[in-house]
Amino acid sequence: MRPYNFSAGPAAMPEDVLKEAAAEMLNWHGSGMGVMEMSHRGKEFGQIYAEAEADLRELLAVPSHFKLLFMQGGGLAENAIVPLNLSRGETADFVVTGSWSQKSAQEAARYCTTHEAANTKAGGFTTLVAPSNWQLSAKPAYVHICSNETINGVEFHELPDLKALGCDAPLVIDFSSHVASRPVDWTRVGLAFGGAQKNLGPAGLTLVAVREDLLDRALPICPSAFTYKTVADNQSMFNTPPTYSIYIAGLVFKWLKRQGGIAAMEARNLAKASLLYEAIDNSSLYVNRVDKSCRSRMNVPFYLRDERLNEDFLTGARSRNLLQLKGHKSVGGMRASIYNAIPIEGVQALVDYLRDFEQTRA
Amino acid sequence: MRPYNFSAGPAAMPEDVLKEAAAEMLNWHGSGMGVMEMSHRGKEFGQIYAEAEADLRELLAVPSHFKLLFMQGGGLAENAIVPLNLSRGETADFVVTGSWSQKSAQEAARYCTTHEAANTKAGGFTTLVAPSNWQLSAKPAYVHICSNETINGVEFHELPDLKALGCDAPLVIDFSSHVASRPVDWTRVGLAFGGAQKNLGPAGLTLVAVREDLLDRALPICPSAFTYKTVADNQSMFNTPPTYSIYIAGLVFKWLKRQGGIAAMEARNLAKASLLYEAIDNSSLYVNRVDKSCRSRMNVPFYLRDERLNEDFLTGARSRNLLQLKGHKSVGGMRASIYNAIPIEGVQALVDYLRDFEQTRA
Repeated sequence: MRPYNFSAGPAAMPEDVLKEAAAEMLNWHGSGMGVMEMSHRGKEFGQIYAEAEADLRELLAVPSHFKLLFMQGGGLAENAIVPLNLSRGETADFVVTGSWSQKSAQEAARYCTTHEAANTKAGGFTTLVAPSNWQLSAKPAYVHICSNETINGVEFHELPDLKALGCDAPLVIDFSSHVASRPVDWTRVGLAFGGAQKNLGPAGLTLVAVREDLLDRALPICPSAFTYKTVADNQSMFNTPPTYSIYIAGLVFKWLKRQGGIAAMEARNLAKASLLYEAIDNSSLYVNRVDKSCRSRMNVPFYLRDERLNEDFLTGARSRNLLQLKGHKSVGGMRASIYNAIPIEGVQALVDYLRDFEQTRA
Repeated sequence: MRPYNFSAGPAAMPEDVLKEAAAEMLNWHGSGMGVMEMSHRGKEFGQIYAEAEADLRELLAVPSHFKLLFMQGGGLAENAIVPLNLSRGETADFVVTGSWSQKSAQEAARYCTTHEAANTKAGGFTTLVAPSNWQLSAKPAYVHICSNETINGVEFHELPDLKALGCDAPLVIDFSSHVASRPVDWTRVGLAFGGAQKNLGPAGLTLVAVREDLLDRALPICPSAFTYKTVADNQSMFNTPPTYSIYIAGLVFKWLKRQGGIAAMEARNLAKASLLYEAIDNSSLYVNRVDKSCRSRMNVPFYLRDERLNEDFLTGARSRNLLQLKGHKSVGGMRASIYNAIPIEGVQALVDYLRDFEQTRA
């Protein structure tokens, strides 16, 4: 049996996907070529691309007036690419709820005026502010949130309805670390972006879903390869796309469909998260400090109340084939990322270990 | 036997590399993880990265005062990233010898004044101008060349010596399509960049080799993820790097070392190119229009003098397992890209087919 890998990203992949990729490595569907070796303009890769795009659109129920772009650079590059494309050099609003939205606001300040509509840093990024209490600027070019903070473990369980707040700006969501774990209410979204390396596929691929009316607002200094309209007009092939990563993501999409799609994944993810949070909450040794109303279903940071036990905990985990549980260096402690590819059995194995480790230290 | 794949990129990979990658897909070196699943900050990927960097530095004999960066976005993104990092908004000179250097000059104009030191478009991009005849500007921030034009099949067999021309600007070379096919004279280079998808590995990985004194000249509008100093200071891990692509490139580097290194590859590439150009030159049906002094060893465009035979030619090639010979849409005709991963046997098979096809049509 393979170990359970709780890495925050790059992260565990479905075993079936890795097996398919290995089997097809030298010869994709009788073409005589591995996928890595195909021209991105040939009919073979054209089919791979078209299926990946269609499967993702179906899975996430992306409306037809959104373009799906397969780009490069990850979330950190998008922190610049989004304001380069959407800000018009005006004011953009940021709801700062953790490390990622904070970085997004900092980077955007190169290209526009940034305004913090809310900031929960004072509380250690353990909660959310209700949208009705956000201090939006008068006419933001867009409003940015990170809908799941990978490091801090804070998740928006409902996307804000900006229109209901009297704001007609597009909502930008960084959904890197929970894309495909739950449905998306596209009526509330203008643009969504995410690095693939958590729930979709390999690092080096970035997904952008952008409403068509927002495509053509880029600043003249935006590099062509990162101008959404240019990328969209060229079916993500203005520059050579990360072909192998798109292929692997396409295998993940087909795997997700076999699992029953996003609704089925959401039910599983709810069950997995409940199991783990309950085990933490019911223990005397472990603690998760995030408000229950906004705990992430994907990234579960937790601390040992006695931090001197951290190394023992990690060593013991590895001996049980529970890998990559160390927390992010900026916050310390532990973190279990329980993305789509982690089955409930993996979470159960972790919960069993949490209990056993606590008992031996009691 | 696998077909021979003459794609210009993404392109043929060494069969041994694909086999290794397939064998390790689910479990890299007993780690219990596939490479795609590893945190880029873990010790396993740290080892993969360090070995890839060291092997590449050794293979290309990169001096210690150059940084090697593993980036994303390909050559087209670098067309913006280079001037964002090096131009200071001043004047940059471009030697336009084909489609790629032309695109580079066009994109740079977003960020600086561009000056064409030479342009061979009038001759159909089939020749080079001697550096002594370049019209360099008074004090360029840098001088850009594409040292091998993938589409037009024109190669600099010697890098220009700017100092000998009385110019102390750094030379920037786009070596995407001939990196690792021949040694590089680093004494003449300030910065070299290349997409990996021709001679190094999968699409989605971009190699940049930059002299340390050029690291810290970026414009304030340069995105952090593409600022060379930021990338260098973070060992290419400011943003999550394309980990799997770096791993595959690392396997290619080890394969290159087993082949005898770059000098051995150069000897093979010379032999391969000679074999193919001789066959073309000695035929009545095929023609390559590039001056013999600057023909590319990697990308060999050729035309059938009777273009009505094009489809028959390609169909016959496929039936002999000779794949992806169609020329770039912008120039038509045929193109055989004979990168490192194409063995001499592959070129011989192509030459045999050229002869047989011509005979049946005589």
